[in-house]
Amino acid sequence: MSNTAQAQLGAVLAAGGPELGELLERTEERLARVAEGHGERLAHHAGGTLAAGGKRLRPMLLFLCASELDERLVAAGVAVELLHMATLVHDDVLDAAELRRGRATVFAEGGRGAAAATGDLLFSRAFAELAATESEEAVRALSAASSALARGELMQRADAWDGEVTPERYLERCRLKTASLFEASCRLGALFGGRPELADRLGSFGERLGVAFQMLDDVLDVSGPPERTGKPRGADLLDGTVTLPLILARERDPSLAVPVRCAEEAAAVCDRIAATGALEDARERALGYVGEAKRALDGVALSDQRARALQLVADGVVERYA
Amino acid sequence: MSNTAQAQLGAVLAAGGPELGELLERTEERLARVAEGHGERLAHHAGGTLAAGGKRLRPMLLFLCASELDERLVAAGVAVELLHMATLVHDDVLDAAELRRGRATVFAEGGRGAAAATGDLLFSRAFAELAATESEEAVRALSAASSALARGELMQRADAWDGEVTPERYLERCRLKTASLFEASCRLGALFGGRPELADRLGSFGERLGVAFQMLDDVLDVSGPPERTGKPRGADLLDGTVTLPLILARERDPSLAVPVRCAEEAAAVCDRIAATGALEDARERALGYVGEAKRALDGVALSDQRARALQLVADGVVERYA
Repeated sequence: MSNTAQAQLGAVLAAGGPELGELLERTEERLARVAEGHGERLAHHAGGTLAAGGKRLRPMLLFLCASELDERLVAAGVAVELLHMATLVHDDVLDAAELRRGRATVFAEGGRGAAAATGDLLFSRAFAELAATESEEAVRALSAASSALARGELMQRADAWDGEVTPERYLERCRLKTASLFEASCRLGALFGGRPELADRLGSFGERLGVAFQMLDDVLDVSGPPERTGKPRGADLLDGTVTLPLILARERDPSLAVPVRCAEEAAAVCDRIAATGALEDARERALGYVGEAKRALDGVALSDQRARALQLVADGVVERYA
Repeated sequence: MSNTAQAQLGAVLAAGGPELGELLERTEERLARVAEGHGERLAHHAGGTLAAGGKRLRPMLLFLCASELDERLVAAGVAVELLHMATLVHDDVLDAAELRRGRATVFAEGGRGAAAATGDLLFSRAFAELAATESEEAVRALSAASSALARGELMQRADAWDGEVTPERYLERCRLKTASLFEASCRLGALFGGRPELADRLGSFGERLGVAFQMLDDVLDVSGPPERTGKPRGADLLDGTVTLPLILARERDPSLAVPVRCAEEAAAVCDRIAATGALEDARERALGYVGEAKRALDGVALSDQRARALQLVADGVVERYA
């Protein structure tokens, strides 16, 4: 984690109050235990995946959208993180990815079968954790997000190498493959945190933020630098994923509509995309979504402290990509 | 479906009473609806998978283990079938399988990404359907089965091409990858069918039957004929899956410990396995499990009609492979 990100996280934790830290700690413990009890091999793969960390952004959003402490918040936080992990593990199978966050992926370590099984396990554990809350509404929310993730994944594969992808279609994909789980996280926080009447408003905050998150992630794939992202520039170009920077750049330089075949070519195309000014434009649009997300919080009956913490998370999403 | 299988199914339906037919019909309708509402592409892939049919053996077991009609039985029946389908779709990705039940697989039609997403969707819908019952115990049972399926899948891949797999290890794999969902189906039937106190006994029936089912399926892979199984003989040999017929045959003919590289070689090895008498031996052991399953029903407080129908299903599993 960079120093800025660390400082940002510290600020969120401070604003979220002592109970936020405690909820996150209990989530961590629970995630560690989830991987156990399903056989040695799965424990190894699933444990490695969960320990690899990540920012636990989704559980954090969930907790920050809660006004009151409730035992079920931890179960819900664990569930959204498990679902997120499951999709990452399955994505690595599809992309034949060797590294994630600087560690060997389950796919690289155990092969396609191990990764598929580990993802399936994480999937089913996500729903099992949430079922412990005995809330049908909650399971429905997670299931809706899970369906959306699957649709988004499918849409991305269907649109691969397609020169005709519009910005609108790209945005719909961001909503499905990323924003849906951000939205569900915020909804679940409202639901179990004593503010079910705020579920729509907070869900909308999460959804906008999720779209921005994905857009900025796609900018970063082009801008790099690799030492910051942990992957070579233009990974999306190489697997045919058409993202906003490329879509906008093509409008300005139609000769960019070429398939990219190797890492050197990808880096060169990244430079050409950057030269069109498409990165600034895409970043600007993402910031627009962050602004919308923040405005969704206006007048929402959360404590000042919580509202402040949510704003900080929104800023953190931008910061990460600054 | 063969004439014998059709007659068998007719006998089960007759013994199960009119409500069994109705429950199965409602399950069919619900499965058809599940695929809708998640985007056109997913509806196409998931709908095709669900319409491809199969025997609905797991929902049937579930309903037969119920003593009283309960709305939640259909939700549970749909859930176990969806989970089963999800694993089939994911298996097809791993095996790069083009055909299943004589139809093009999702993998063949839509590629790896479409199949992975479709499987994930079916997974999440399974838990969503079951969550509608608001029973934590039920979700726990399905989740346990789902974890076991993942472990079994992993074990199978880990043991691929391994000459040292023991019969005990093979049986453990059958329990995980097949029997666990049979067991969960019977448990759920007892739970929602007004007989929670019979969940262990009926679960044990399902578990034994599931082991037998997998063993006989593995015999069939070697014995064929292909026109009956819909796949060439020795598919397991080709993908390195070490099953009981090969394990037993190797004990008698150690020269069988060779990797198989093409369909012609596979057919020849199948003949050599058959020549050792290993198929009869494996079938005998499977029948032992069917016998154990039936004995688990002795004295169980089910109506004579239901007990008779469960016996018929057990016989049907054997019949299918006679």
